[in-house]
Order: sequence, then C-alpha cells, then structure tokens
Amino acid sequence: MERLPGFRDFYPEPLPHPDEWSADVRNYIFAQWREVCRRYGFREYDGPSLEPLELFTAKSGDEIVGQLYNFVDKGERAIALRPEMTPTLARMVAAAERSYKKPIKWFAIPQLFRYERQQKGRLREHFQFNADIFGESDPGADAELIALLIDVLRSFGLTAADFVIRLSSRNAWQDFFAKRSSDASKEYDFYQAIDKMEREEPEKTKEKLAAIGIDAAEVLAFVEKGEPTVELGKILDNLGARGLGEFVKIDYNVIRGLAYYTGPVFEAFDRKGKFRAIAGGGRYDHLVKLISGGKVNLPGLGFGMGDVVLTELLKERGLLPKSEAAPKAFCLIEDETLREASLELIQSLREHRFAIEYSLTPAKSDKQFKRAMELGAAYTIKLERAANEDLQLRFKNLKTREEKILNPAEAATHLRGENGAH
Amino acid sequence: MERLPGFRDFYPEPLPHPDEWSADVRNYIFAQWREVCRRYGFREYDGPSLEPLELFTAKSGDEIVGQLYNFVDKGERAIALRPEMTPTLARMVAAAERSYKKPIKWFAIPQLFRYERQQKGRLREHFQFNADIFGESDPGADAELIALLIDVLRSFGLTAADFVIRLSSRNAWQDFFAKRSSDASKEYDFYQAIDKMEREEPEKTKEKLAAIGIDAAEVLAFVEKGEPTVELGKILDNLGARGLGEFVKIDYNVIRGLAYYTGPVFEAFDRKGKFRAIAGGGRYDHLVKLISGGKVNLPGLGFGMGDVVLTELLKERGLLPKSEAAPKAFCLIEDETLREASLELIQSLREHRFAIEYSLTPAKSDKQFKRAMELGAAYTIKLERAANEDLQLRFKNLKTREEKILNPAEAATHLRGENGAH
Repeated sequence: MERLPGFRDFYPEPLPHPDEWSADVRNYIFAQWREVCRRYGFREYDGPSLEPLELFTAKSGDEIVGQLYNFVDKGERAIALRPEMTPTLARMVAAAERSYKKPIKWFAIPQLFRYERQQKGRLREHFQFNADIFGESDPGADAELIALLIDVLRSFGLTAADFVIRLSSRNAWQDFFAKRSSDASKEYDFYQAIDKMEREEPEKTKEKLAAIGIDAAEVLAFVEKGEPTVELGKILDNLGARGLGEFVKIDYNVIRGLAYYTGPVFEAFDRKGKFRAIAGGGRYDHLVKLISGGKVNLPGLGFGMGDVVLTELLKERGLLPKSEAAPKAFCLIEDETLREASLELIQSLREHRFAIEYSLTPAKSDKQFKRAMELGAAYTIKLERAANEDLQLRFKNLKTREEKILNPAEAATHLRGENGAH
Repeated sequence: MERLPGFRDFYPEPLPHPDEWSADVRNYIFAQWREVCRRYGFREYDGPSLEPLELFTAKSGDEIVGQLYNFVDKGERAIALRPEMTPTLARMVAAAERSYKKPIKWFAIPQLFRYERQQKGRLREHFQFNADIFGESDPGADAELIALLIDVLRSFGLTAADFVIRLSSRNAWQDFFAKRSSDASKEYDFYQAIDKMEREEPEKTKEKLAAIGIDAAEVLAFVEKGEPTVELGKILDNLGARGLGEFVKIDYNVIRGLAYYTGPVFEAFDRKGKFRAIAGGGRYDHLVKLISGGKVNLPGLGFGMGDVVLTELLKERGLLPKSEAAPKAFCLIEDETLREASLELIQSLREHRFAIEYSLTPAKSDKQFKRAMELGAAYTIKLERAANEDLQLRFKNLKTREEKILNPAEAATHLRGENGAH
C-alpha cells in the first residue's frame, strides 16, 4: 500500500532513500523557528487543521474552493483542510483579543493543504511557519516582523549573500492607481497585472495595463525608480538601525497576489534566483474585521515561510546539520548473569537524562560493540565481576579508546565529563 | 465564525478562558515525550495526516469507516484523515525496514481524527504519542517499551501512587480459549466479551460467554488468580531489575479491543480510577505482514498515549508547570532620539540569544515599565546620555530592584549573570 501522491513521510536519518524527507531535518527547522521567536517575544498558538469551508471563502472568495481539500462531513457541514493559517488566526484573535495586551505577537507551525488537480508531482501539503502582529499600525511593527524574518533565515546560517527581502507597498500601488484611474472596479485587475509582471511577457502586461487604462511605461519607470514611500522609509531606517540594512531592498515588482493586503508587503528570495520565494507577507489591517463580521477591528500583519523551499535551499547551500541522535553510552552485556544489574544501571543513567542504548537480547560481544559504533555512541560501559566478586564498571571512551575501571556508582559523573552535557 | 465542534484552538497563556486549551501546555507535554524518547534511543518519524482509506480498512475492517473522517478527493480517491498512527507506521516500516538496523525504535506525535456522529461534546481530534519497536520478538523488547511508558509518565511528576500499568496477554486468553473451545469462529467474540467485562453487568457477560460455550466462573477465577505467563513473568522480572516493579501489575481484565494484538498487552490507568486509560498498547507481530501484503514480516509492538486524558490528569494533580515565556529584559526607550541606538542594542542582545522586549512605538515611561512588569521581565535596560554625552546603560534587576550604570557593551555579560542562562 502506498502513500497518497503529494504527501510526505518523514523518516529518521539515515534516510532509506535520498528522495525521502528527514524527520531530523524537520525538527531542526522547527526548533530554529521556535528559538528565534522566543528571542523576539513571539508566542506559539495553533488551530484546527479542519475548519468550516466558509472561513476560507469569506477571505478569498469562492474561487479558492478549486484549490482546497474540501468535503461535506457526516453532520452535513461543508469543511476544508486549512490551505493557510491566517483565517484561523484572525478568527482566534477576534474571539480572544480582549484577553491579551497589545501588540499581540504570535507564531504557529501548521501543516497546510492544497489540492490542485493539475499539479502533477507537486506537494499537496507543507508546514508553514507563520508569524503575526496585531494591534499596532505603526511601521515599527512592520520592521520588527521583517527583522524576525531576517534573523530566522540567519539562524540557519544564511547570509546577505544568500537572500534578500524585497520590500514593497500596496499603498504605493494604490496611490499610483488612484492618480491615474477613477475606475475602482479595475483596481484588483491592476494588482493582478503587477503581480504577474515579472513572470509574463512584457507585451502581455502592456496589453493588460492598457485595458485598465494604465500606461506600462509609467509602471516600469515607477518600479525602476524604486523610491521608498514615507512608510517604507521608516521601515528601512528601523532595520538599518538594527544593522540589518543589507538584507532588504525596495522592489515594487512585489505586490502579493492575495487581495487582503493593505500596506507594506514583502518577500524573501534567494539572491541566485534559483528557488521560489522563501517567505512572503505584509500588512492586512481589515482582515480581523472581515472575519469577525465587523465585531473586532484590529490592524494586523504577518508572514509565512514554508518548509519545502527552505529545506531545498539549505540542502543546496550545505547548511543542513548532521543528525545528532547518537547515544551517550552503549551498555555492553557480555555476562548474562549481569543483565539484571545492567538494566538497573541503564535505568539509573537514563534517570540522569543520559541517552543509553544496549542489546535488548543476549548477543555476541563483538556484535554488541559493532552496534555501539554504528550508533555513534560516545562511550561503552560494561559491568564485570572484580577479583573479589564485587561489581566494577569498564568505561571506554570510543573516540580516544581510553579505558578505565570505575565503581558503578561513579558512571553518571564520568559520563557527564568536563562539560556537563548529556 | 466559529470553529468546528470537537476541535480545539491552542492559545498562548494566559488563556482567554479556562475551557480553552493551552499551546504552552501542549509544547511542554510534547517536549517531555521527546526528551524521554531521546534517553531511550527512540527516533522520531511522521507520516501524512491523509491516507488511502484502504490502509485503515485493511487493518480494522470496514466497520471502522463509520468512525472516520473519510471522503473522495478530486482525483476520485477514497481517502481518510488518520484515526490512528499504526497503519501508517506499518506501511513506512514495510517500505524502508531494510535501511535500518534492528531493533527499530521509533516514536511520533501525530494528530488523529475520529468522527462519530453520536459523540456530542466529545473531541474529534487529539494528539497521540506513539512509541513502537520492530524486529524483536523477545519479551526484553516489551519490557523496554513499558519502561519507556513508565518513565514518560514519571517525567511529568506522576508517581506509583498516581498510576499503574495493567499488564495482560493475548496469548494467555488465546490458550484459555483454545483449552475450552474448538470453534475458532467464536474467538473474536470471546475477546470482545472479555474486553467489555469490566464495564458491563456481570449477567450480560455471563450470557455472552455462555453463548460462546465458556463458563463465566472459570473466566473470573482466571482473572482473580492473575498468574503471569512465562512471557509476562520475564517482563515483570526485567522491570523489577530496573526498579520499576511497583508501577506494574498483572490484570487479565485488560485485553485491548483491537483485533490485531498477538502477545502481551497493557494499559496505563490512574490509581484513583477517575479517568479513561492514559495509554495502551501491546504486541502485534502480524501487522507489518498484513499491511505489506505479505512482503515484509517483522514482529512489532507499541503503545499510544493521547494528550487529552494526560492533560486532564496533570491538571487535576496540579502538575502542569507555569508558562515560562517571560523575556530576559525589557528595553525602555524614554528618549526617542535614542530609539535607533536602542534598536541596535536590542538586535545585539537577541543575537546573543536573549529574549528582549520593548515598545514598538513611543510610549510613556510608566506605561513601558508597567508592560515590563506584566511580561515578567527579569531586567529593564535603558540607554541614557551620561554627563559627557556618551551613552550609558541603566540596568535594573526587577526582582531585587537593584540598579547599576553600565557601559552598553557590557549588557550581554550582565544579562548572562552568574548562571549563564538565557
């Protein structure tokens, strides 16, 4: 029986096949995401993987249904596997914001699902790190969020030579449009044309813009000039003060396709342009109001970063760490009359928080030693009977090959060694 | 818009309402599960939350469909949200076991889903810690697994006064049945009757057993006597050698309803009998063969422990820790001309891995200080201009109220303090 197309198993390393995904790498990435959030005071939340379908159509319109895993449950409810976290987050914040001091700084690592029939060979799920701020309309919040994004990427060993944040603004494009058109019904089409501009033939974009009544040359000049708005200027200054200026540049090609952004928007790209966007986000000041049916009005902003592109990028740059699952010690049991005493020792060392392995069943001495080496154990320990029949411990450092004889009660102290690590 | 019935949001503490679930508690529980697995050398894996429906019906028969979130996707595949992890695990192990040395010791923390229409007010999802061993048929493996279970529960502060592992055996009941009946077609009904025995009227059980041709008095005497089989005796001796004997007792009332168990089975219960089982599992030596269509034959055993009962139990016993999200320092910015220098300082301290908070926007001095107190910051730090116009740092310990004036470059050293903690 096989897994569904577009889904991943996560195996412990060493992987059974280079195409499989590593649970160790996933844990490493999640741990970095959490660690940088801790430093920035972002708190973790989560919501259900299943939500009412309406939560997603309310935000993104009915056209999103074509991209969803949606179905009718046994209670006749129209439901969907979440394709993004922001609607759930807006729902949660709208329901509970009065219990939290502002600004609310939250993050989550949800698994998200998309089902597009035509996407052969593409993944239908990924994990997405989401970080958001609510209750602060000042650009200081946008800068804090972008600084978090930069430091998250830096925590993986990526540098300013590896990635850049392209910073743009919905407001800037809004102003641009308002100065040139009075037909608000075409505003959304305009954003769509800008969004596709980089990936489309220039002629195609020109035609689209002409249909809206906009001159493509003016659009190109605006992008070329790349003059920061007052708001973007403040964000740049703020990031500059933190010493993060080299990680960000104004780029009005970015507009973010989703309809709900209202202010600054940004995307993180690898400098070599080899991968899809590593992360993207922006300000969405009306979303909580929309999701709460007008009951709660809170400005918000956030970004998402998926695990797939990030993992591919880190792999390509050689930045994925080696798995660190090796046990501290392997307990050799060569004299089966000492198995019970060995189990007692193993238990005591595990209670001291050391990772201890041993052979669950009687096995030849050399086979046990081989297994200790394969697992990468730092030490072997072995109970023996001394000449006076007392138990003694043979303690061997597998790196230096040094061996000593200890009192079994000293095992924990010697395993702890100089640095106190487990 | 509301979340679906039976699903949970996880909020950061302090919770908006005592009935809501805490993301902090969830992280704490997951962290303990992972930590004890590390000590025991269990490695983490995960699989898809969606699987072909057939994977679950192959194992549990078609009757399970009534309890599933199942649907037909846009590619006409019958699929289901996973109601348990074992079939996915068996699929993964069957596909990749040749790449791993035996015994394979793995764990996972999947979210699982069940949809039973009649279950009003009951949860339809939970997170379940799963630990399994493959490739070892010796009872030493059963003992290792049960020791892990005991140490996981102890890691939460639970003691032998709080919980007990009730150990039983499918083989023992198999022997019991084989000695008294030659009608193999009634074997499954027999297990079902034993499984329900504790919760049913004795008369009802007696009738059921009579219909199978078994004398209820003999069943009761067998349970009463509770004599360990040879296999269970070895498990008890092994756990005893580890000093874990007080956490386990023979109890043949336990048989585990699921059809696929083949050997020792066990459940963890709170001693006061207030909650449903905390965990349950056992040996299933034929499952990998079944799931792999006969291609791979590996003995296996494992248990599952859900987050819901465990959280309720820990809450009732007062064993849930306080949230530890307080920042190390709150940076006060009272002179706005020093905001840029303060941002530089904040960035540098965060790069030293300290959790630092500050006001994103200009705010009154007393409001900033109040916020630092609310967040539980250990220190406040504030840049000031000294008499000679140089920058100095006012460093205040919020517990002792001690204040000192430092060179800003010394901030990290002083935050690190005596114990070097972040």
